[in-house]
Amino acid sequence: MLPVEVLEETQSELVNYKNSGMSLIECSHRGPHYDEVHNEAVGLVKELLRVPDEFGILFLQGGATLQFAMTAMNLLAPSQKAAIVHSGHWANLAMKDSQVYGNVYIAWDGTDDQFSRTPSENEIELQPDTRYLHITTNETIGGVRLYDWPDLGVPLVGDMSSDYFSRHIPWNLMDVAYGGAQKNLGPSGLTLVIVRKSVLETHPRDLPTYLDYRVHYATNSRFNTPAIFPIYVAGKVLKWYKDKGGVDEFEKLSIARCAHLYGMIDASNGFYNCPVEGESRSRMNVVFRLPNEGLESKFLADAELQGLVNLTGHRSVGGIRASIYNSMPMEGVEKLANFMDNFRASHS
Amino acid sequence: MLPVEVLEETQSELVNYKNSGMSLIECSHRGPHYDEVHNEAVGLVKELLRVPDEFGILFLQGGATLQFAMTAMNLLAPSQKAAIVHSGHWANLAMKDSQVYGNVYIAWDGTDDQFSRTPSENEIELQPDTRYLHITTNETIGGVRLYDWPDLGVPLVGDMSSDYFSRHIPWNLMDVAYGGAQKNLGPSGLTLVIVRKSVLETHPRDLPTYLDYRVHYATNSRFNTPAIFPIYVAGKVLKWYKDKGGVDEFEKLSIARCAHLYGMIDASNGFYNCPVEGESRSRMNVVFRLPNEGLESKFLADAELQGLVNLTGHRSVGGIRASIYNSMPMEGVEKLANFMDNFRASHS
Repeated sequence: MLPVEVLEETQSELVNYKNSGMSLIECSHRGPHYDEVHNEAVGLVKELLRVPDEFGILFLQGGATLQFAMTAMNLLAPSQKAAIVHSGHWANLAMKDSQVYGNVYIAWDGTDDQFSRTPSENEIELQPDTRYLHITTNETIGGVRLYDWPDLGVPLVGDMSSDYFSRHIPWNLMDVAYGGAQKNLGPSGLTLVIVRKSVLETHPRDLPTYLDYRVHYATNSRFNTPAIFPIYVAGKVLKWYKDKGGVDEFEKLSIARCAHLYGMIDASNGFYNCPVEGESRSRMNVVFRLPNEGLESKFLADAELQGLVNLTGHRSVGGIRASIYNSMPMEGVEKLANFMDNFRASHS
Repeated sequence: MLPVEVLEETQSELVNYKNSGMSLIECSHRGPHYDEVHNEAVGLVKELLRVPDEFGILFLQGGATLQFAMTAMNLLAPSQKAAIVHSGHWANLAMKDSQVYGNVYIAWDGTDDQFSRTPSENEIELQPDTRYLHITTNETIGGVRLYDWPDLGVPLVGDMSSDYFSRHIPWNLMDVAYGGAQKNLGPSGLTLVIVRKSVLETHPRDLPTYLDYRVHYATNSRFNTPAIFPIYVAGKVLKWYKDKGGVDEFEKLSIARCAHLYGMIDASNGFYNCPVEGESRSRMNVVFRLPNEGLESKFLADAELQGLVNLTGHRSVGGIRASIYNSMPMEGVEKLANFMDNFRASHS
């Protein structure tokens, strides 16, 4: 979901960008029009997330999926160890891909709890000489969020695909933050990677051009042609975030949005049931179950009739999932909460 | 450059796609709207390039630059050899990145000729047990094209970024064709990879998810979120190509366009000079020099006053470069040719 203001502005500029006589997507990635767009987006990332000068901002392609591999390729020598918080589906994918490039071990495992919570800092067991600890700050499928940023003397590498720009990042703990754009930043096809510059001084293996953070940092992400349209629209989303009050405001909104839904669930006398424990509950993906699968099917079908779509839980876990990313207005949440209230009244 | 019809249709659909109430770029990459867009684009690639069933069509990210590495990762075991036709700037980058993953040697070297021509088949010297021969079918900077597809009993891997859809591809010789979209296919952020399915049965090394062709083929390029907007616009460009007569027609047009400019150069009594020899002359990038750099600067400045932009040769070679990709109308070429004629008349 993108702010309608952003879509309308994009539409108005699509054929003739700022009277240039061409579309921005036809402009050279080294020309002045795109240069301005690119640098403005970089500046807004820096401003909104309060990124210190010790970090570089990269606009890459390939999604978080390519970063599962690139973080390890760029940070981890074959002889080194990295740790991971195994918080669910996305952590598992990050683990498998990073294991191609080094020894990656599980420092906390949510499997036995069926990924119904994330760990507090003191539950994470690190081995000596761990290069970094990989975290997934929000799991879209399990509906859990990492509430406690582990400050254990080991740098963090964080997949923030699904909660970027909805919370501030403790940069002093981070080596890399990364995420696909399509949840909270803009169109798909853009990956935002924020990397500590000192990481670029290490060189754990020979890397081809595209997979080397150093190349992208040295060229301001323009060694080769970047994904111009996604970056251009992301820049507009970031501007919209800034105009609306920035990350502080979107964090407040995310708390209010999810509180509305969790409140409805917890007041339903067990008709709705969220499997996730208190602090670990996601602010982006509210997952819940109904008393049986028949009622869940009916819930989804009735919701769709009222224009409430994309509520089906991931096929691996079933149930219901309400995704409430930054661009979701409170009215959308209220509409769903009212629907839930009415549905419970007529089916419990 | 994109066809204006494509831009206008994209603009009209941008906020509300086919009365869905949302933009296509907000749609799920697993939902029915995008599903149709994706499969239509795949089908058009297949139809226009006459791709046989033995090949799979992948929509990836990271540009041709990522394919420099991915082709080698997916095809070449560390103990194997690959050959390359060293035809200029892009071939050199492909060589450097693929050498990270195997033994890549130069089978023909254009260095001594200052990349002023490409080889005929019988000039290419292959060593025994060569896994594949990498070719760059058009070099944008040197302005050369590969006119002779080498049929030497070794499969070809071809970077077609700058002449995709302007010529047919001899599929019986190919293992992989690949290219970034931004020259002849659509917006940046999309890479079209066409891979022989039997290649996917080999497994030269452990690969992380995103870098493994098998994953993308098995999921119809949707293991993770694809670059929805670039694929969507590329689909419209492909439809436009089909409506205009397909690759046969665009090949004819490319011959006519470049003949107009080379004709002007060759009839200029040496005022304009193209360093590239006959058959090797690019149909996409016409490069030429003027008697001295002072005149070249004046040529570029005067051209810009007449709205003829982006004519500066690459900084590594200097001179003038006219890029005439598929969407360039003949009127644009005629306007440039007239300007060249007038400029010569007043400066020679």
